[in-house]
Amino acid sequence: MSQLRGHALIGQSGGPTAVINQSLVGLVESCVEHPDITGVYGALNGIEGIIEERLIDLGRESREELERVAMTPAAALGSVRRKPTPEACRRVLDVFKAHDIRYFFYVGGNDSAETAHLLNEAALEIGYEVRLFHVPKTIDNDLAGCDHTPGFGSAARFVAQAFMGDDQDNRSLGGVKINVIMGRHAGWLTAASRLARRHEGDGPHLIYLPEGVFDRQEFCDRVEEMLLKHGRCLVAVSEGIHDAEGKVIASGTEVDSHGNIQLSGTGALGDYLSELVKSKVSAAKRVRADTFGYLQRSFFGVISEQDALEAREVGRAAVRVATSGECQHGSLAIQRGSNDGTYEPLYVVNDLSVVAAATRHVPEEFINGTDDVSSAFVEWATPLVGALPVPGRLASHPVSPRTNATQLS
Amino acid sequence: MSQLRGHALIGQSGGPTAVINQSLVGLVESCVEHPDITGVYGALNGIEGIIEERLIDLGRESREELERVAMTPAAALGSVRRKPTPEACRRVLDVFKAHDIRYFFYVGGNDSAETAHLLNEAALEIGYEVRLFHVPKTIDNDLAGCDHTPGFGSAARFVAQAFMGDDQDNRSLGGVKINVIMGRHAGWLTAASRLARRHEGDGPHLIYLPEGVFDRQEFCDRVEEMLLKHGRCLVAVSEGIHDAEGKVIASGTEVDSHGNIQLSGTGALGDYLSELVKSKVSAAKRVRADTFGYLQRSFFGVISEQDALEAREVGRAAVRVATSGECQHGSLAIQRGSNDGTYEPLYVVNDLSVVAAATRHVPEEFINGTDDVSSAFVEWATPLVGALPVPGRLASHPVSPRTNATQLS
Repeated sequence: MSQLRGHALIGQSGGPTAVINQSLVGLVESCVEHPDITGVYGALNGIEGIIEERLIDLGRESREELERVAMTPAAALGSVRRKPTPEACRRVLDVFKAHDIRYFFYVGGNDSAETAHLLNEAALEIGYEVRLFHVPKTIDNDLAGCDHTPGFGSAARFVAQAFMGDDQDNRSLGGVKINVIMGRHAGWLTAASRLARRHEGDGPHLIYLPEGVFDRQEFCDRVEEMLLKHGRCLVAVSEGIHDAEGKVIASGTEVDSHGNIQLSGTGALGDYLSELVKSKVSAAKRVRADTFGYLQRSFFGVISEQDALEAREVGRAAVRVATSGECQHGSLAIQRGSNDGTYEPLYVVNDLSVVAAATRHVPEEFINGTDDVSSAFVEWATPLVGALPVPGRLASHPVSPRTNATQLS
Repeated sequence: MSQLRGHALIGQSGGPTAVINQSLVGLVESCVEHPDITGVYGALNGIEGIIEERLIDLGRESREELERVAMTPAAALGSVRRKPTPEACRRVLDVFKAHDIRYFFYVGGNDSAETAHLLNEAALEIGYEVRLFHVPKTIDNDLAGCDHTPGFGSAARFVAQAFMGDDQDNRSLGGVKINVIMGRHAGWLTAASRLARRHEGDGPHLIYLPEGVFDRQEFCDRVEEMLLKHGRCLVAVSEGIHDAEGKVIASGTEVDSHGNIQLSGTGALGDYLSELVKSKVSAAKRVRADTFGYLQRSFFGVISEQDALEAREVGRAAVRVATSGECQHGSLAIQRGSNDGTYEPLYVVNDLSVVAAATRHVPEEFINGTDDVSSAFVEWATPLVGALPVPGRLASHPVSPRTNATQLS
């Protein structure tokens, strides 16, 4: 296999995760050790930092600080949401040439894979040899060609712990509680709320994914049904729920350069659903909504250990694959090994074109009707999220009444 | 001191906290051990459960499950928001008599102290001997006559960790991020966001408490100033911020029986401020808002160890005080000992009337101008919240440019 000597460049892109810096540090440590890699740089704010030539020397960072960075949420290099024009791609390659960049690792979601794909086409066109690899991250878990993505396990853990506590809260005060979860096209993270359900009667009682059609009347009927059954109702909805025509139920107005509508960073959907229930469900006296927002992707202190470990390893694997020369470009992915039923992550490489701008939805076997998730999903997700705390519950032995209960005004 | 033999009854009231069940378990274990206490019951949903005679026998709960309950957020007995009428008070006393309840412990905020106060007046009127004690809890930290309240430390820890992560998130993608924090009348919890600021340039860059007046134009000017200075702006605002006339900036419409307006469980304020910045601050290109909501008070897995310990101990102290007969009624409170500068909690008793329906605001020495919190607050809050994780930051040694940077469209 062909050897290629030169510098490596790393960038981070898209929405942060709690473990995206684990991948950064995995990349840096493997680049530093490899004899073919003559230096390792970081681009500030991804593609934008390359265009503006804002590069830093990651080889000079201390081992100790890198370990602290690995434990810190969000993109230490700074992130960006920008799809490069053909002109921008040429500019990026000029910067690559000027600094002898022969390895480029872009840590991000499917938009980042698309960027790597465009850069690769541009490099082939001018005959510049550079190995371009997309390193996956996204809390949305919606990349094509993988079992799951780094970042999902920790975000899913946050959602599960949040629902475990909020179920206790809803049990304390009753009423209807609606929580809006991130994930515009795929319901993986919303589905993770299901992990909070341990005992009969636990919430969330209703779970709505963007994979299905959200019917307002059916929703209200189901909320009423749960109120009658449990005396309360805890609901998980994806920010991307939509009607039969595909129209999202509530949204902001901004659109980024990849064509994505802003759904996060606003309480609009939660408030809309709250008002809907108040006006249509007569049994609903107390209705509240929370939008979990950015806490899901960058909370400091709630991570899945398995997720952190895999995020680190996927960075190391990217350097192994790139330097081996077995392929010139590609997208790293995690598959699931099936060794005697125990969970095992496998690190593989997909074509960039497979991942770019594609979305992987929650499959049918993980969905249970129009408003629930299957136990197969729970089995699938558990090793990624790790063991959750166990809530206590009073046995509540009743005391026999000694008075004639009176009705008070 | 007079001895009083009979059953003890425990209730929980108001908004949940992450450690309110520690107080419950502290009460139960001390009641079970005390020779004057012949049994220990729990009222389901506080005062409502007494009126409806929905009582459970807490003495029959297993030690093991009680320990799990202590670690579980929100009110294990169920909570309530209800101010008893004179008729309801008489009914409560009938139930007390029927079950020989001679000790009543009500775990809650100032509304709960008010309820205990009303019950005490009613008991005196009919000459029924019962020892009535309010056991404090509130994430808002706004009870009169104390240094701080159980529940605050854990909620403050959640807010601090959330801001630590969100500061990294805001640093990654830039723009303006506004986070709305609970606390309708007092800014203690909003002030806790300040604990996230470790290094020069860290957010939150602006902190707005309900103790001050919120001026819309001044807010926009300061956001613009921070954008120019830091290239981004992270803002903490209390849900209770109000204008010079005392009118809240945004609110829902519900009012409970204690006269409190609903501010939580809606994204209205965050969305309003977000639109305000978008329309008035030309430099603000990306503006997002999150409302932390109920996660602050009942997240499963983020607690302050000191807070958990004190919540347990305040329950035990309530039983010690009640059974000693040194006072017939009162409200437990935590004061701060001043032994050689190290932190030490002291458990004291206040008059119920001191605590009932009073609000303790953030004092002037903890406030820094119109949009910041002082370092004295940080010193005060740190022992209550505990050690926070330390974020890593790249040294970012710049690489010298080798091209002529070009402007791209």
